[in-house]
Amino acid sequence: MNLFRLDASILPGTSTSAEIADAAEAEWTAAHPGATVTRRHLGTDPLPAEAWALATTAAFTPEADRTPAQLEALALAATLAEEVQRADAAILAVPLYNFGVSQHFKTWADLVIAGAGPTTPLLKGTPTVLATSLGGGYGPGTPREGWDHSTPYLERVLGDIWQADLTVIKRELTLAATTPGMESLQDLAEQHRIEALAAASRAGRTLAGN
Amino acid sequence: MNLFRLDASILPGTSTSAEIADAAEAEWTAAHPGATVTRRHLGTDPLPAEAWALATTAAFTPEADRTPAQLEALALAATLAEEVQRADAAILAVPLYNFGVSQHFKTWADLVIAGAGPTTPLLKGTPTVLATSLGGGYGPGTPREGWDHSTPYLERVLGDIWQADLTVIKRELTLAATTPGMESLQDLAEQHRIEALAAASRAGRTLAGN
Repeated sequence: MNLFRLDASILPGTSTSAEIADAAEAEWTAAHPGATVTRRHLGTDPLPAEAWALATTAAFTPEADRTPAQLEALALAATLAEEVQRADAAILAVPLYNFGVSQHFKTWADLVIAGAGPTTPLLKGTPTVLATSLGGGYGPGTPREGWDHSTPYLERVLGDIWQADLTVIKRELTLAATTPGMESLQDLAEQHRIEALAAASRAGRTLAGN
Repeated sequence: MNLFRLDASILPGTSTSAEIADAAEAEWTAAHPGATVTRRHLGTDPLPAEAWALATTAAFTPEADRTPAQLEALALAATLAEEVQRADAAILAVPLYNFGVSQHFKTWADLVIAGAGPTTPLLKGTPTVLATSLGGGYGPGTPREGWDHSTPYLERVLGDIWQADLTVIKRELTLAATTPGMESLQDLAEQHRIEALAAASRAGRTLAGN
């Protein structure tokens, strides 16, 4: 059994998405002691900014004419795609950043798609947990309803393109604990945290059962 | 007068978003001969993948304790933010990639926001043209309606956060000319192209008049 674990927080020491993902992972490893966990931390070890363009232009270049940099980019793309395809279960921790997708996740996804092809269902039927954290509130009726441009994209890639069996756990208001002016939201934020961790444990047990 | 021109295509030789942006830029330069054009090509000269995390952690680090890499990242963020803020007019060419925002654009936007602050309206009232190109069709009733997760994010950053006076020119079906199986869409694609270029010229004249 092989679990793929991806993180995208640039502040891993205080990552709230990682906290959710850890709760799910704990259930999986408890059920599969000694099994392999393949880790990819995009926040602390980001992929090079040039690789995707190199892999893309390499695909238009006759094999014999490819540069060393193009070959390296193609190999990286293939490695990343294989990590996803080999997974029996997957847990991804991807925060919302500046109302959009993590730059490091998009770089990774572009490379995976370059390695696997645009329509390959890399996670077809693979039980997958996406843990995402949002600093503010984005629910219906809030001033920033619709400003989370990350989660719908993550669901598109993981669910529609790669066809994962996807469970999304979204925790909002993570900045309330430390941000002046958000004090009145701290109780609600703590409630979100407790619910997200409980959902993560449940999702981890389902993941482990597969 | 100072025009800010940004490109995000990783294939600049055949970029359809650049073709639209060029049409707008030609009108602006015709009206302002000899004026400054500040260029930032993210596709061919991408920003480093580590800079944003370094700039972000630097903000939590006492000035005297910041590392050379953190200081360099802060300086880069400040430079990028200034380029945007100094603009009297702006033209951005940003393709849709893998149903999401250009990884290089997101990296840039994160750094600009790190340099300027999260709510600074860097382009307040600045006439701005966003040229975007989409390989397929994403309009109402098409199978991939709703799969363009880039344009709404670009509009959010440029329009809602930075408060640009924004004109969006979107050209679809750019892959029809070269992709097997899309032959029946070539006439429609060419019509989209002609309409986008005409819209770009009009937008460029409006830009020039400001």
